[in-house]
Amino acid sequence: MPEFRQNVATKDWVIVATERAKRPEDFVAKKDKKERLPFREDCPFCPGNETKTPPSLYQVQNGKGWQVRVIPNKFAALVPDGEFKRIEGIPFHSMTGIGDHEVIIETPKHNLSPALLEPQDMKSLLAVYRDRYKKIISNPPRTQMIIMFRNHGESAGTSLEHPHSQVVATPIIPLHIKYRIDEALRYYESTGECVFCYMIDEEMKCGDRIIAKNDRFVVFEPFASSSPFETWIMPLRHSSSFDQITDDELSSLTTIFQDTLKRLYHGLDDPDYNYMIKSSPVDRRTSDYFHWYIKIVPRLTKAAGFEIGSGMYINSAMPEKCAEFLRNVNFSK
Amino acid sequence: MPEFRQNVATKDWVIVATERAKRPEDFVAKKDKKERLPFREDCPFCPGNETKTPPSLYQVQNGKGWQVRVIPNKFAALVPDGEFKRIEGIPFHSMTGIGDHEVIIETPKHNLSPALLEPQDMKSLLAVYRDRYKKIISNPPRTQMIIMFRNHGESAGTSLEHPHSQVVATPIIPLHIKYRIDEALRYYESTGECVFCYMIDEEMKCGDRIIAKNDRFVVFEPFASSSPFETWIMPLRHSSSFDQITDDELSSLTTIFQDTLKRLYHGLDDPDYNYMIKSSPVDRRTSDYFHWYIKIVPRLTKAAGFEIGSGMYINSAMPEKCAEFLRNVNFSK
Repeated sequence: MPEFRQNVATKDWVIVATERAKRPEDFVAKKDKKERLPFREDCPFCPGNETKTPPSLYQVQNGKGWQVRVIPNKFAALVPDGEFKRIEGIPFHSMTGIGDHEVIIETPKHNLSPALLEPQDMKSLLAVYRDRYKKIISNPPRTQMIIMFRNHGESAGTSLEHPHSQVVATPIIPLHIKYRIDEALRYYESTGECVFCYMIDEEMKCGDRIIAKNDRFVVFEPFASSSPFETWIMPLRHSSSFDQITDDELSSLTTIFQDTLKRLYHGLDDPDYNYMIKSSPVDRRTSDYFHWYIKIVPRLTKAAGFEIGSGMYINSAMPEKCAEFLRNVNFSK
Repeated sequence: MPEFRQNVATKDWVIVATERAKRPEDFVAKKDKKERLPFREDCPFCPGNETKTPPSLYQVQNGKGWQVRVIPNKFAALVPDGEFKRIEGIPFHSMTGIGDHEVIIETPKHNLSPALLEPQDMKSLLAVYRDRYKKIISNPPRTQMIIMFRNHGESAGTSLEHPHSQVVATPIIPLHIKYRIDEALRYYESTGECVFCYMIDEEMKCGDRIIAKNDRFVVFEPFASSSPFETWIMPLRHSSSFDQITDDELSSLTTIFQDTLKRLYHGLDDPDYNYMIKSSPVDRRTSDYFHWYIKIVPRLTKAAGFEIGSGMYINSAMPEKCAEFLRNVNFSK
């Protein structure tokens, strides 16, 4: 019998379609592997081609040159200069498209990805995430929301192959995020507790969906995962915004995050995925009711008319089985 | 300068990314056209292969056999028999996966689609949509939401090529739909007016995004379209649920809906798309504050980390330009 499952924090329902469920093994990507070289002449993000991009906003240097490079997005969705103001009122409510849109080039090597970086380079990358977060917060007071994300592979919407992440900072709170925050606040108001802390406790007590745990983070497939192998990485300490991660936490996160990406890489043969750092709006970043986390969404299935029409997902894999599969991946090869 | 735009009815924001905007012509699908035959031996939905599917729930006959055929989905996301009940309470809230999942085989001919049907066959199909809607409402009182949709082409999530639509009926209201209804109710409470009726009036007054209009329906690209060529078809008469469409309206809809699909077919070279009939929850289907409509979403771009993380879309085409393009398509060829 299929099941409706509800996420305790977001209140989203999902249908776990047992009648059409697949085994975790059935999701292993059967891609034609292209041999990728560490350098491509025609790639604007490869070293030596820096003039093909806007100048760096920030760089991490190593002995040989830059290790991580932050640049404005050349095809930015939002522009940094100008006034954030209403263009028209209702019914055609619009505002000027002011904001930040940065690209973080993760490594000089064209053929790597976070799963394959040296651990110290992964740590540098996460430190750059934090630094950019802090830098953007300190910008003029227009920033309300910072969205950090990574698109890996064509199904995940990548247009450039060279490993990179992106940051978009907006002067509005997207409606979907407002709803999430409202649900968390509603729980907090009636219990005095962070619903995400509660979720972590209960997931750890149950254990069926836990993939890994260390002293400061836990990795699991949520009970109401929307799609096969949806994976959350959460800090055990309550903290509502990513910019508040401590140095010790950054070290713990480096290991467990990279191990998780390796589990996907080796277990599912380098699937396309998106990951996002979910964090509080800027002005509520020390709240007691929201909890930051990283959400990884492998792009193994396609949203169709049902999902677009209802906002509810049909998951064709059991989260418990996906967690068991990822737990057992030998990722140290 | 890019623009943030807000949908007056849903309150969703979108970024219209003028800096990376494409011309409507750039979205013309450049597909390798496979020659499709009207019959395939191995297709379970082709005539003669009826034993490969569950038995019909309903059929429309023509002189030669069935013209439209409704069957239970063989790989149903929900099952019709059993009790709708809680399995576990919070934090792992789940319910039994009871509901309906039907497939509507739109025509015996394997190589057609709604854009290519004879007008009387398109009308039969829409009449079947209405009949199934009414039939499912009259089922035991468990149904809260009916989602009718169509997936056209691989990017839209089709697994079977033979033209078909689907209906899923759920005993819960998906959270995303609850939010939509709440926003519409909030507007109604402060104005006494349906926000969708208001939107229709204002879109018609402005005119820039109107594609077509007849005595009973209007077709337009919403001001805050989430993606290129997102198209809404709305009844001019306030009506909150599709089951209440009159015979006259069904005739008017047949023409304008099929013309719209032809505009996409000829203008964009048969793009992949989803369409959904958006309608009130069953127990509120005579409400004054929600308004049913058909939403067509051509799948020309991919949601990436930003969209998944924020629920906000970056639209790389101007709705006004897309509307102008579709208005000018010669679709009577």
